[in-house]
Amino acid sequence: MDRGLHYGDGLFETIACVEGSLQLWDEHIERMQNAAKKLSIESIAINNFKQDVLAILKQHSINNCVVKLMLTRGQGQRGYQSPSPQKTTRIVVIGDLPQYSDEFNSHGIKACFCQHPISKNSALAGIKHLNRLDNVLARNEWRDEYQEGLMLDDSNNIIEGTMSNVFASKNNQLLTPSLENCGVNGIIREQILAIAQEQGIETHVTNIKKDDIKNMDEVFVCNSIIGIWPISSLGNNIYEVGSMTQQLSQALQQRICAQ
Amino acid sequence: MDRGLHYGDGLFETIACVEGSLQLWDEHIERMQNAAKKLSIESIAINNFKQDVLAILKQHSINNCVVKLMLTRGQGQRGYQSPSPQKTTRIVVIGDLPQYSDEFNSHGIKACFCQHPISKNSALAGIKHLNRLDNVLARNEWRDEYQEGLMLDDSNNIIEGTMSNVFASKNNQLLTPSLENCGVNGIIREQILAIAQEQGIETHVTNIKKDDIKNMDEVFVCNSIIGIWPISSLGNNIYEVGSMTQQLSQALQQRICAQ
Repeated sequence: MDRGLHYGDGLFETIACVEGSLQLWDEHIERMQNAAKKLSIESIAINNFKQDVLAILKQHSINNCVVKLMLTRGQGQRGYQSPSPQKTTRIVVIGDLPQYSDEFNSHGIKACFCQHPISKNSALAGIKHLNRLDNVLARNEWRDEYQEGLMLDDSNNIIEGTMSNVFASKNNQLLTPSLENCGVNGIIREQILAIAQEQGIETHVTNIKKDDIKNMDEVFVCNSIIGIWPISSLGNNIYEVGSMTQQLSQALQQRICAQ
Repeated sequence: MDRGLHYGDGLFETIACVEGSLQLWDEHIERMQNAAKKLSIESIAINNFKQDVLAILKQHSINNCVVKLMLTRGQGQRGYQSPSPQKTTRIVVIGDLPQYSDEFNSHGIKACFCQHPISKNSALAGIKHLNRLDNVLARNEWRDEYQEGLMLDDSNNIIEGTMSNVFASKNNQLLTPSLENCGVNGIIREQILAIAQEQGIETHVTNIKKDDIKNMDEVFVCNSIIGIWPISSLGNNIYEVGSMTQQLSQALQQRICAQ
């Protein structure tokens, strides 16, 4: 009877644990707390995730893994109305770090455009909630031919990858799609925007049309598990792994290690 | 690890069981089968729901209840990619029929306009999937002051209630919102459209703006559990329980009983 199953009424975070370090833990927790507030999900239980995770990692002597945190509005009776009081459900899933080729980081990936449009809703935009059918349907348009697919809204604006955010560069300017109407406000995306600001890179959070992406100098995707993957081919477009991507990738690694 | 929980990657149906009769069972199963096809969810397991439900009802000597069927894409490893082959999960939840006042059917309900906008996505429109955060957030805008709230898209088109479809009448014409971009294609909505056609009522599946609803003669909502509830007040608008609503309500009851 958990509302996570019945309605997708909850949130999640996916965190890389590398050499025992829970990368950008505070940022993930802060995002979940902000999202819980937006959805009026009781959020005090979020404070218990760290001890849950540390206990599991210690018990199983795990140093490298993917940590997935889920927070749902808990059990309820039939119907959409929220139980009062809420007794949220806290779920920790520990999985193996995926074994991606290092080539993806260094030489780039093949990506496609997904046909399935991303849902538009300004009230849910940015939030990493459990309503992820769009991502599922978009991801299932291919199997192994590509490493990622880019999702568009119904006006042909590129929004994000199925599991990543997307950036592009043109004439040494950095661009990333606006997430006002859809998409997930990724932690690595935020880090990259912060790095760009520190380094004085001119940055635009803006609409990027499908037709405009072919004119970009560099395109890359990012998330908490992969870091940055340059895109070497996207549909009929071919890109070099350029200096902007390399510079941001290096700075991101340093930033995460320096925590 | 069920994808129903992780992604809302599944479908559901809510069916009234009254005096041992599973109302409009075939219609519900057909809708689920069509939706499974659209989402590429392996659907053969749907055929097993009837024996599941009958076994539970018999075992517990239940004649009156709400039957909720859920079908998910099953367990999977981390990530949006669908497992291959899929081993779908089948869930049956039996609950009490809600004890609504008979006055709601006869004298109508109080309804409000919800602030939370409904997500737009033509590829998901109509499907009764498990991504129901919109309904949750809209329903949680009030507690007991109203019996239903109407949800609008971002262009102020009325789409549906949080748990129902909506109809209106004007000058003996029947109107119901188009579900091309959002909303659930309700079983009772379909029945009402069929009745209207049989009875020669001029019907329009069209856009209905929030501002237009105040000019309607009658407004009602419907679903499989409540049947038809006339709306007596909606925001500042007051409506009579009129002859169109009464006529359709009576025909609907006869149609369901005649099965």
